[in-house]
Amino acid sequence: MVATAATLAFFPAAPLPLHSGAKPSTKPAGGGLWTLRACSIPSKSAASGSLQVEGNVQTPRKISGIALGLSSAREIVKNDEETSSPPWMAFISQLPDWSMLHTAITMIFSAAEKQWMMFNRKRKGHGVLIDPLGSGRSVQDSLVFRQKFSINSYETGPHGTIFIETMINHSLEAGLNQLKSIGLLDDGFGSTPEMSKRNLIWVVTQHQIVVDRYPKWGDVVQVDIWLSPLGKNAMQRGWLYRDLKTSEILARASSMWVMMHKHSRILSKFPDEVRQELEPHYVSAPPVDRRKLPKLGDNTAEYIRGGLTPRLSDLDVNQHVNNVKYIGWILESVPLQLMESNELSGITVEYKRECGMGNVLQSLTTVSAASVIGERIECLHLLRLDDGTEVVRARTEWQPKHAKSSGKLGAESA
Amino acid sequence: MVATAATLAFFPAAPLPLHSGAKPSTKPAGGGLWTLRACSIPSKSAASGSLQVEGNVQTPRKISGIALGLSSAREIVKNDEETSSPPWMAFISQLPDWSMLHTAITMIFSAAEKQWMMFNRKRKGHGVLIDPLGSGRSVQDSLVFRQKFSINSYETGPHGTIFIETMINHSLEAGLNQLKSIGLLDDGFGSTPEMSKRNLIWVVTQHQIVVDRYPKWGDVVQVDIWLSPLGKNAMQRGWLYRDLKTSEILARASSMWVMMHKHSRILSKFPDEVRQELEPHYVSAPPVDRRKLPKLGDNTAEYIRGGLTPRLSDLDVNQHVNNVKYIGWILESVPLQLMESNELSGITVEYKRECGMGNVLQSLTTVSAASVIGERIECLHLLRLDDGTEVVRARTEWQPKHAKSSGKLGAESA
Repeated sequence: MVATAATLAFFPAAPLPLHSGAKPSTKPAGGGLWTLRACSIPSKSAASGSLQVEGNVQTPRKISGIALGLSSAREIVKNDEETSSPPWMAFISQLPDWSMLHTAITMIFSAAEKQWMMFNRKRKGHGVLIDPLGSGRSVQDSLVFRQKFSINSYETGPHGTIFIETMINHSLEAGLNQLKSIGLLDDGFGSTPEMSKRNLIWVVTQHQIVVDRYPKWGDVVQVDIWLSPLGKNAMQRGWLYRDLKTSEILARASSMWVMMHKHSRILSKFPDEVRQELEPHYVSAPPVDRRKLPKLGDNTAEYIRGGLTPRLSDLDVNQHVNNVKYIGWILESVPLQLMESNELSGITVEYKRECGMGNVLQSLTTVSAASVIGERIECLHLLRLDDGTEVVRARTEWQPKHAKSSGKLGAESA
Repeated sequence: MVATAATLAFFPAAPLPLHSGAKPSTKPAGGGLWTLRACSIPSKSAASGSLQVEGNVQTPRKISGIALGLSSAREIVKNDEETSSPPWMAFISQLPDWSMLHTAITMIFSAAEKQWMMFNRKRKGHGVLIDPLGSGRSVQDSLVFRQKFSINSYETGPHGTIFIETMINHSLEAGLNQLKSIGLLDDGFGSTPEMSKRNLIWVVTQHQIVVDRYPKWGDVVQVDIWLSPLGKNAMQRGWLYRDLKTSEILARASSMWVMMHKHSRILSKFPDEVRQELEPHYVSAPPVDRRKLPKLGDNTAEYIRGGLTPRLSDLDVNQHVNNVKYIGWILESVPLQLMESNELSGITVEYKRECGMGNVLQSLTTVSAASVIGERIECLHLLRLDDGTEVVRARTEWQPKHAKSSGKLGAESA
């Protein structure tokens, strides 16, 4: 268990139960859907609690603070955000003897200019500011990108909280801004310069999220996101979702990305030149739980909802349905009764093929009796075209709404 | 035409053509859908170019600057946003003779403290900061609320720009924050304290928007929003949508609001106590163009699309379909060919009744031959339940995509 210390940097080393109130899992490590092994971060120097960078040439780089455990991470957030007394107060208190006025003037200007510079630096943060409103910046030697988002009223749903889709959207925005901050964004779709030369684009193949609490209108959240290699021909993004005010971790997640040719829509290997672009920015992490999700069919699905069609607002710049929109369709076949008394606490989505305008989909769901662990409910899902072609497989986990206030992940992990 | 000067504060006094490149309308003032008369702002002291506040008791208050015409408004925006040289540079340049060091020290501290206070004030803006990230504040004696929004990647659609729904969403968020900033927000739905006592909530009955240009990912927009009375039992919100960097006006719009009992869902008159809460914050403005939109039927609609059902993510906190979501359904019956070669440049939406989960809707559209003015196309729309019950009437206007870059409203109106 060399990895344990470093693993604790972001996630408990043991298979992660969905919520803190859960009993410790008796399953072997990695055997459960919700272990999110992908997000534990091992390190050769794990005993020091540091995060390592994987690269062919560079010596693994440490990123300070963020690898020191959740309580430390929380302190870092607070230190980054808090504002001190005006530099002028400190400036005045540093005033030397009145008898040495000439020297004093020089010192005053020097000290005050220093204070000014410090204050200005604090305003801008310690990393590279990337967006026009200054809500995002790279931190930890540009290995992690951190962005704040205000939760707007129109992003909240019938329960007054945001949807899981909004969390994913925030991570996608932060992910694009990370690439911009490290100089690897060549277009609006996230392609690096070497990818653009070859007409390659990113395609997400999986999202995996565990949610402990959904924020509401007026809250401010903070996304920390980083890149990791995943075999030779895939990339993984890990991200944490925090309440900025309390530093409580609201969700932890990962996504898998591969490359596709823009015109032929055929998947591509990672060209060496692209790998060389990305490697200096990688944080090493083991892959996510990649057990195959079982395929549902007419015989195994309990609920089927057909006639689902994309709306114009579901399309992305590639004229295909935005990957996040499928989640809404998945939920279309979940029994209303289940959704009314439970809250979605986790989801794994695997993308099989693209859809566009003109496609008609069916949403299939089964609530597996075997997966009812304690009060939690697990569902399996399939989205398919009318001709049976698979589009998306998914697994969701639900917990009773009354359990919402118990067991915050952040508190438990601290 | 006393109102002309003040009208220019926000909108041209003459019936507003959709785009600057248009020939002057020959229709009588107010006779066209797109005149947006509602948004012109008359004033008793119009000659002075000031905006007036309507109230029973108070003397009409002027709000400076913003009523001085679009070019002035643009300067105000720039003045608000630009950052000057560090106060320390000015501070150093103000240094008096070295021979008067004692006095100098006092002056230095005095001047520097003043600079600090000025800088601090500039950081916070001139009004009341309202949101945690400091992107919104009340300005112009709290008569106008101004909020900035970064355009995120996930808000852009197949053309790389945002949807008209996002603009409306931004205005709704800014509208709620305005109520918060003036101390009238009693809950998350916008009810004032006196409304909450009576279980009254706001219901929007109309949106009317003219768009000149849609922003794209990475742009920052600024919404200016204000309240106006509309008869005895309605309220109007006017808003401007600007590109923060260039101050170009991207869209101008208004919405109409009435009150409804939370439980009985019956419309209510404005209680005197609520009127008294609102009046001090009103900016006087004539009503929007309220000509009735014609009702489409099976005989008049050219395109009908049925089987439209709400998704979970379409619902608001009242468990009804969010008013903005209907726009997506309206567009479902617009011919794809029209949408591919044209851009939505304006919309009027009238809400007739609420919908929830379980409702199935039909979307009807007709492209009126008589409404093809030059290259512009006008469509009429109806959303109805399967049993024929009306839900929404709408009118849209479209312009060819190649005309996008011509005739910016902001430039024209300056």
